[in-house]
Parts: sequence; C-alpha cells; structure tokens
Amino acid sequence: MIPFINQLPKHEEIIWLAVLNQRLPDENIVSYSEVKLADKKSVKLAIVANPDTDLLAEFEHLTWVHSVWAGVEHLMKSLADSPIEVVRLIDPTLSNAMSEAVLAWSLYLHRDMPRYAMQQQNQHWLQHQLVPASERRIGILGLGELGQVSAAQLQKNGFNVMGWSRTAKKIANISCFSGEQGLAEMLAQSDILVCLLPLTQATRGMLNKNLLTQLPQSSAIINFARGGIINTDDLLAALNSNYLSHAVLDVFEHEPLTADSELWQHPDITILPHISAPTNINSACDIVAKNILNFRATGLIPKAVSKVNGY
Amino acid sequence: MIPFINQLPKHEEIIWLAVLNQRLPDENIVSYSEVKLADKKSVKLAIVANPDTDLLAEFEHLTWVHSVWAGVEHLMKSLADSPIEVVRLIDPTLSNAMSEAVLAWSLYLHRDMPRYAMQQQNQHWLQHQLVPASERRIGILGLGELGQVSAAQLQKNGFNVMGWSRTAKKIANISCFSGEQGLAEMLAQSDILVCLLPLTQATRGMLNKNLLTQLPQSSAIINFARGGIINTDDLLAALNSNYLSHAVLDVFEHEPLTADSELWQHPDITILPHISAPTNINSACDIVAKNILNFRATGLIPKAVSKVNGY
Repeated sequence: MIPFINQLPKHEEIIWLAVLNQRLPDENIVSYSEVKLADKKSVKLAIVANPDTDLLAEFEHLTWVHSVWAGVEHLMKSLADSPIEVVRLIDPTLSNAMSEAVLAWSLYLHRDMPRYAMQQQNQHWLQHQLVPASERRIGILGLGELGQVSAAQLQKNGFNVMGWSRTAKKIANISCFSGEQGLAEMLAQSDILVCLLPLTQATRGMLNKNLLTQLPQSSAIINFARGGIINTDDLLAALNSNYLSHAVLDVFEHEPLTADSELWQHPDITILPHISAPTNINSACDIVAKNILNFRATGLIPKAVSKVNGY
Repeated sequence: MIPFINQLPKHEEIIWLAVLNQRLPDENIVSYSEVKLADKKSVKLAIVANPDTDLLAEFEHLTWVHSVWAGVEHLMKSLADSPIEVVRLIDPTLSNAMSEAVLAWSLYLHRDMPRYAMQQQNQHWLQHQLVPASERRIGILGLGELGQVSAAQLQKNGFNVMGWSRTAKKIANISCFSGEQGLAEMLAQSDILVCLLPLTQATRGMLNKNLLTQLPQSSAIINFARGGIINTDDLLAALNSNYLSHAVLDVFEHEPLTADSELWQHPDITILPHISAPTNINSACDIVAKNILNFRATGLIPKAVSKVNGY
C-alpha cells in the first residue's frame, strides 16, 4: 500500500488516485484518509502533493516520498532533520511548458507588448524601435532542469542568453555565471531577468533592492519560480521610480493573490495566476510510476533533493 | 544619377540618401526634388518608397524601380499597364522580424495573454487549461518569403503549422494547402489564422464573413499583412457574436488608425501601430546596393513583381 498524502480538493485527489492506480496496477495507492492505523507500520513510501508534514510522522518506517510537484520547499523545511528522502517531480512536459512560458513572456517584453497595450488604451499610435533579439540580453537565475531548457529555447530563437547558478556549470551557447561575483556580472548585463530559482533559505527575499539595482536601468523581470524569492516592497520601489520598466509575476507569497493587493492595478506589473508551467497529471503520473516501478525492481530510491541545499 | 522618389518626411529622406550613397559610392543618388529637367532623360533606374507614381512618368527612359519596402501594392496598381518593372525589397532582416512577430503574437494568443490581462483588470485569479503547442493548429495565409520563414519558426517551437498559397507549394514539416478547396480545408482546422498575404485585387476584402465563418469557433486571427485584406465590419460581427475569440491587428486601411475608430476600445482586439516588421534602413540599403551593383555589372534587372499577380 502506498498512501497519497495531499491537501488537494477531493475532486482533484480522486483524479490523481485514478491515474496513479491505472499506471501502477500492481500497487494499491489510497488516500491518506483511507489508511488504517494497523497498516501504517508497513508503509515505506508515500506519494505526496504539498502534504501536512505532521502526517508523515505517523508512518514510522517511511523512508522516502515522491512529490507529484516540482516545488518542494515546504517539505524540505519540515523534513530538514528527518531521514525521509524527498524526490521531486522532474517532468519534461513541465519543463517544456515552462520554457514555452519563458519564451512567450520574454517576447512579450522584447516586443513591447505592455507599452503597446497602454497606447491602445489611450488611442495612441506610436512606433518604438525594434531591438534585434541578438542584442536583447536575457539573464536566467537558476540553471536546473527548467533553467537549462528555457535558456536553450531562448537561444534557439535568437536571444543573447546568460545563466547563473550557485555552482559553476557549462552549457553550449549560453554564457554561464556562478557565485557572488558571477551574479553581479550577469545582473549588470541583463535587459530581462528571468527567475527560475528554487525557494530555499538562501533564495528567500534574494530579489531585493540590492540585487534589482544591479540590473541596467529600464530592464524588466519575470518571476516564474516562487513569490517568496522577491521582496515585493523593493520591487514596487524599483518600478515606481522607473528604474525597472516592467515585472511579470506568476507566483506570490500567498496564492491566490487577494483582491485587495496593490499589485493587481500596477500599470507596470503583469499578474498571472500561477500558470507558467501547470502540472500535467498524465505525464506526472507516468514519471512517478516509472520511478516506483524501478524502486520495486532494484530497491534504489530516485535521486532525492539535497537536505543541505534544498534543491 | 539615380533619383530617390518618395513621400517620406524630409528627415527620413536625408537618412535614406546618406546610407544609400554610402553603400553605392560610385553612384549619385539624389532626392527627386534635386533632379534637373535636363537630367531626367538619362534616368533608367529609380529607388522608390511609396512614390507619387505620376512623377515616374517624367522619366521617359525609366525601365525599373527598386522599392526600399516590401509592400508595393500602390505601385503595382498604378503601373499595371506600364513597362516599368518593380523590384520589391526582400530582406532577411525583415523576414526575421516578421517571423519573430508571428511567433510572439501566436504565443500571446496560445498562452491566453488577452484573457489573463482582462482578469488582472478585474482582480480575478483563474487558471485556464494549457493546450500543448503540438495541439495548437496555426494556419498561415501566404507562403512567400515572410510566410515560409514564419511557418518554420512556429514549427521549430512545437506548433502544428499549416500554410496556404494560391499555387501549390511543398515545404518541409508544414502541411501545405492551395487553391479554393485547399483554403476551405485549412480554415476549418486553424485555431489561429495568420494573414501574410500581399494586398492585390484578389486579396482585397478576402477575410470577410464567408472566410471567417469557415474557421473553428473560438479561433483567433492575426493580420500582419495589409488592412485592406480584412473586411472590418465582418470581423467586428464575428468578434461581437463571440464566434471569433480575438484579433491582433497591426495594419489598417488608413494609418495611423484615427482616434475615433471603434477598434481601439474593443476588448477582443489588440491594436498594434504597424510594428510587426519595421524596415531596417541598414539592411534594406545593403540589399538595394547589391541589386544595383549587379545590374551595373550584368545589365540584369533583379526578379520583378508580376504585373499579373501583383506579387
């Protein structure tokens, strides 16, 4: 038996359970609420979607959990001192959706769509000079799976692409930067900064005044990672002083963004309801199933998230 | 001497003349207004930018004109019965700008940007299902230079791309349609219809009620060609009845679009001020220079626009 521990609405949990059991016909995957006390001791593995982590402690022989989501910051925080390993979802379908979103909203900024939308509201006909994509420098924060695929898609479409990661990486056709010094170098050249970092202790509030003011004047940012990485007050200050030209925000500290948030009406902010890379249940369940089948066959836990780095 | 016959503002004419003369140091390219009567007889070739075509008749030995623009519908109309050949600009820089625009605004529609912008205005947080690019069918009207490059860029980014041309063409990875029957077949499958046709007698008003209602319900259109190709009343009727979901319009019968046009405020129309593929003076002058140098060396006029088809 494999419990599915989640905080999803019931109708979503039912779909996940149906697809998971269909993909793993030899397993018995059940809702947490259906697991009997006597059975808990036998559980070694759970499937999770942003679970209440207190519930995990009820399974004394639990050794690892497979998240059906890519973002696992809550789990990592709660399980920092626990021996339970956390496997996050690495799904090419998700990576493709993300790289498409990075390209789409980079083009949105590159081709001046926010400015032309405002002109339309004012019945104002005015052409702005087109910058060739090869002269548009896009810096990507985070060169994990999502960052690498996004960088490649931007590069394929003619942009001048840079990427930053904590530890040094080498990627074809991408200027790679790392560490503190590398961060400053990349920021100084980024006309568009795309945040794809995981939310960890090191990245919480990282996009603050100090970082944003290292960007060239009139640059723009895209946050498709987690709301907690941006200091919202510092972002608003940078936009209101016209230091930054625009921000595309898909993620927020509290979601849904409440109707009274001042972000909604800001003329230089594009608000998206966390849609850059939605989970695809079918492809997610394919990957979870493959990992669990391999575990049953070999006893090997898939590559887990580092308890030290949080990603 | 080569006259530059145009209706550009003086400050723009000065830039064109400077760049043209810099690229062709052995020629003497002068403003039409500077050409003396006695010199007109010797002129065989003119460079033009949407000229007053009456002026062309003053050059009795003129055999061909080189347009610095791609769109030559006014010239073709006036010179239909004239022996003067019209060479239009075919510039890869322009084609690249256009294919980037086709990709950018296709992604704009594909990723629901108009809908999310409207939700932002209403502080409304709602996610819509993401359609994979491979299931988004984009039909391109016109498979000339611009259409072919645009189709390739959409295809490279995962879209399901089709194209239509008057006469049959074969292009790798693109489903090609032609003729009346082919047009109906492509329209019936186009979630997004991109118009890149030249404006000719055959295409004026072509995007009318009959054509638009052959598209699937909720499809969207992009017009990056010429305003005269769309019947605006029929488009508005299709949008107002919610048959079509959205229209991105970069070109209009009269430009600039006047402030009193009802198009500006339509919630399902995105108005752009003719910016999809702006002329790049440097690359345009490179191409005009190359064609003229070749003409001087060989006596061969570059491939001209057909007087029969208008393209």
